[in-house]
Formats: sequence, structure tokens, C-alpha cells
Amino acid sequence: MSKPGIEDVGVYIPAGRQSNESRKAQFGIDDAFLEQKIGVRNAARKAASEDTSDLCLEAFRALTEKRAIDAGSISCVVVVTQNPDARLPHVSAILHGKLGLREDCACFDISLGCSGYVHGLSIILAFMEAHSLSTGLLFTADPYSKIVDPEDKNTSLLFGDAATVTLIGTNPVFHAGPFSFGTIGKEQMELSCPSNGRLSMNGHAIFNFAAKSVPIDLDRVLAKAGLDRDEVDRFLLHQGSKYIVDTIAKRAKLDSGKVPFDIAEYGNTVSSSIPILLEKQLAPAAGNIFVLSGFGVGLAYASAVLRRVL
Amino acid sequence: MSKPGIEDVGVYIPAGRQSNESRKAQFGIDDAFLEQKIGVRNAARKAASEDTSDLCLEAFRALTEKRAIDAGSISCVVVVTQNPDARLPHVSAILHGKLGLREDCACFDISLGCSGYVHGLSIILAFMEAHSLSTGLLFTADPYSKIVDPEDKNTSLLFGDAATVTLIGTNPVFHAGPFSFGTIGKEQMELSCPSNGRLSMNGHAIFNFAAKSVPIDLDRVLAKAGLDRDEVDRFLLHQGSKYIVDTIAKRAKLDSGKVPFDIAEYGNTVSSSIPILLEKQLAPAAGNIFVLSGFGVGLAYASAVLRRVL
Repeated sequence: MSKPGIEDVGVYIPAGRQSNESRKAQFGIDDAFLEQKIGVRNAARKAASEDTSDLCLEAFRALTEKRAIDAGSISCVVVVTQNPDARLPHVSAILHGKLGLREDCACFDISLGCSGYVHGLSIILAFMEAHSLSTGLLFTADPYSKIVDPEDKNTSLLFGDAATVTLIGTNPVFHAGPFSFGTIGKEQMELSCPSNGRLSMNGHAIFNFAAKSVPIDLDRVLAKAGLDRDEVDRFLLHQGSKYIVDTIAKRAKLDSGKVPFDIAEYGNTVSSSIPILLEKQLAPAAGNIFVLSGFGVGLAYASAVLRRVL
Repeated sequence: MSKPGIEDVGVYIPAGRQSNESRKAQFGIDDAFLEQKIGVRNAARKAASEDTSDLCLEAFRALTEKRAIDAGSISCVVVVTQNPDARLPHVSAILHGKLGLREDCACFDISLGCSGYVHGLSIILAFMEAHSLSTGLLFTADPYSKIVDPEDKNTSLLFGDAATVTLIGTNPVFHAGPFSFGTIGKEQMELSCPSNGRLSMNGHAIFNFAAKSVPIDLDRVLAKAGLDRDEVDRFLLHQGSKYIVDTIAKRAKLDSGKVPFDIAEYGNTVSSSIPILLEKQLAPAAGNIFVLSGFGVGLAYASAVLRRVL
């Protein structure tokens, strides 16, 4: 069996928006702060009736509008989230039931935040290769509107709701790897949320962590891949904020034209930010070599190289 | 690099106990029910001050009492839980900080219940092989005392708190595989817990699910491995209850002497039940071929063959 990789991506961004423009007075901020620091004018908000699994189902529906998917072919479902529908069961089991998947389909959720897509990609690919599975779905859905305090300037202007699904199969557009992983657990308290409480983020600490660690990790994954910066067509960085993406690009000496920033109309969607960007790179014109890098809760980061094979 | 496998297991069962004997009148049950149906006389209860990561640290401490572990050698930490310390971060990040692990150590949690050890084993082994990692830790810790309603006869007599850690390395006692996986997502509501609520279990539905699915899955994994029942030294079944373990053994035509039941003094410890049994099989006298089977939340099940290599 040929090596599995990324075949396609489906994206769902709910229609609801919180206008950050309308909150400038409340938080004592100006246009420069919104445009240059945060980079989010409107933050996507799911409907109150939508739960995490519903967002995933909409992402799957978006995928099926692009291509037919035979539910009977899917042998693995992985959901990356820290905001599941419930404490138990896992979201992947709910999706298994709602999508009517076959009984021998392996389902599990992974608890990770903004680095979760890159970690999740490495996990589902390794799992599928180890068990000779040919078709899998990797979902990301971490609707922070469930836990953000609307009065907290640090987080309520920044985070948006979304979900994605990545179709993993043996006729891929991209092969993934090498990967690089990192954790700085002693700083885990800088981005946290108690079981029944609200999200708390030390923005300064998270910024410093990412600005320091990600450029080093990009060098590491490029070296592992035997690639020079110039050979990479796009660097798809987690869309933490305008300022962090700009800062990483500058410190890592990346050509800013190769570093998309795209969240002004929906916000930082946690583990969905990278696959939302990736969906726009599926056509051959976008280039052949991509580097992904996610960073956040843990504190954790992960990077990967994607190479076009189709 | 040689193939990673199970090198050792560390177990922590908190000293606190809930006496089920003392609750017979409250629930209108007799000794026969406690002994033959549930099989739990005393259920382990963690101290109120102990959180999920603390249980994991105690399991790790138990492991280090058996053998020296170089923290600098650990390149992967996976925690199986649906009752983490917090919504975020993941427990593995907290452990990373408290154990002082190296920065390039990959950490993630997996959300699964009673089938979680078998799934987790397959995931960490696949991940470590894919990324050529030589030493990893697989934790299980799902303290249901956090979510059990003490007045619910279905669950409060049954579940106990515990944690385990399995040392994965390239000088193993056991190699694992083949594996078999299953999910019946349309029955997920039979064992559930809302984010801020209490555990709800339809005991009848869960029993019927396990009694039907697990014998079939045991046949499937034995066929995959090319093994006959007689060649297996022990079947380490998830210790759901005395009645379900007896029923599976009977329906699957297993020699009851090969099917340990061991939870009378601590209870059903969710994803920890199989590694607690496994720790007692590490010495060569226990035999050479083991079959593991976990089943529960999802509803999900998973089975695996272990073969002694040391």
C-alpha cells in the first residue's frame, strides 16, 4: 500500500461574527492595535445551538461538496480538541455515529491546542501506516467561544470558532514529514482553563515563547528535511495574531510574501488555523513545498514539511 | 533501531477506600450482588487534594522504585484520560513540567475510556516508530470519583481511582500486535458525562454491547495473529465487573483459569485496569502470549496480542 498523505481539506467557519470594531471604546484600543497587533476585525462565533461535533459535521459536509466520500471507506477518525461536546464520550465517537461509519473504524480524540493540527497529522499518519489503513479523517474543532470571558481583552478579541477536516488517503496531494516537536511544560500555566471555568492567557508569556521557540523549530525541521528557506513555497504558521506571525517571519528571516496572514474576518481558530490556510494551497499553482508550524497550549509547538506529490 | 515495546509498568492505587459492604442497605443489595455481579468490595478513592496529574506522578514514582529512569531519555509522553486536571492544558504537558523532561519531548493526551489502554498502546508505538523515538511513557489515569454521583447504584459501587505508566522502549519484555479496533458510535449516549455534570451509564446496554462485541473481537485478533485460544497464556480483559468478565470468558470459550479478575479491593479503574493486570505478568513464569481487550465509552473496543521477547 502506498504511503498515506493529505488528499483534501474541508473547512467550516460559522456565519456569526463578533465585531471588534464595535468594542474599541470598551477596551480602550485603537485601529492600529486591531490591525497591527491582533489582526482580527471580526471574530467568528458559532450559534449557541452548535456543539463541537456539529462544527465537525459542517466541515465534513463542506468536504463532500468538493468530492464524494464513501463513508464505508473510512477506517480512522481523529478529532483534535480541548473543548469537546462533553467530558465523555469523545467527539470522534459522536461523529462515528452521526456519519454512520463502519464498526471497525478506530476513533479517538487528541487533547492539544494551537499545535494540534501538526501533532494530529503526525499521529493519524503514523497510526494509519502502522495498521495499514487507507482512508482516515483528521478533524480540528476547538470553539473557544465556549470558554472565553467576553470581558477579557486578551482573548475575546482574538479567538474565533471554526472546524476543519483533512482527508487522509493513499492518493495524496501532499506527503508530510519530517516533523519536529517541542514542549515546555514548566510554562503550561500561561495558557489554561479550569474544567468549569474561563480561559486565562498570559499574552506576553505566550508571545515570548512563540517568538523564541518557533524560529528555532523552523530551522530544525528545515535541517531535518535538507531544505533551504528559499526552496519552501509557503510557511503556514499558526495564525496566533498579526504581531506574532510578523515577528516569527522576521526573526526566522522568512520572505514575508511566503507567510500568509488571513484571519482578519474570523480570528484565531486554534488548531483549525493551519488547515484553513492549507485548503487554499491545494492547487498546484500554490507551490510544491510547504512548512507548517503550530504553537500554543502546553506550551507546545510542532512543525512539519509537506511536499506535493500530485 | 529495534522495534519498541513494553519494558515495564508502574501502578498507583490510592490508599483511600469506599466500602461497598457498608452501602448494601442504602442500595438494597446483598452479598451475592456484590460478589457475583459487581465483584467490588472496596472501591479506591483518591484524596481530594490529588488531581489526575498527581496520580500519574505517583505511578511514575512506583516505576522508578523498580528501575532507574533517566528523564533526559524520554522523548514522548501520552496520557489516556477523559478526566484531566483542567480543560486545558493537557495532562501530559503538566507531567512534562513536573518531571523536568527535555524540550523536544512530544506530549499529547488521548480522550478514550475503558478501551483507552489498548488504543493508547497502538498510538504511542506507531508514533514512536514513525519518528524513531526510543523511550516513551504511556500513562492511564481516569479518576471517575470526580464525576460519579455517590447516590447512583449503577456507577458508585463500581468505579475506582488509579493510574498507571507503561515504559515503552527498544529493549522490551513484550512486543505488541496485531491490534483490532471497533466503534459503535450510534450507542455513544449509553455511557456519557456532560462537561459540568455527572456520569450516566446504562449498565444493561453496556453489558450487552461488551458481551456481544468482545468475543467477536477476540476471535478477530486471534485470527489476525494466527493464534489458537490454547496458545494464549492469559486473556487480560478490561475489568468492567465480575459478571461481564465471566460472561465474556464463557461466550468466547476461554479457559476461566486464563482470565484473571482482580478488582475486588479497588474497583473498575477504567483505562488503568488492563495495565494493572499486566504489571503482574512481567515475570517470565506468567507465560509468553497475552491477549488484551478493552471496551467501554464510545462505545469502543480494542484488542491486542502481546508476545514476550525478553
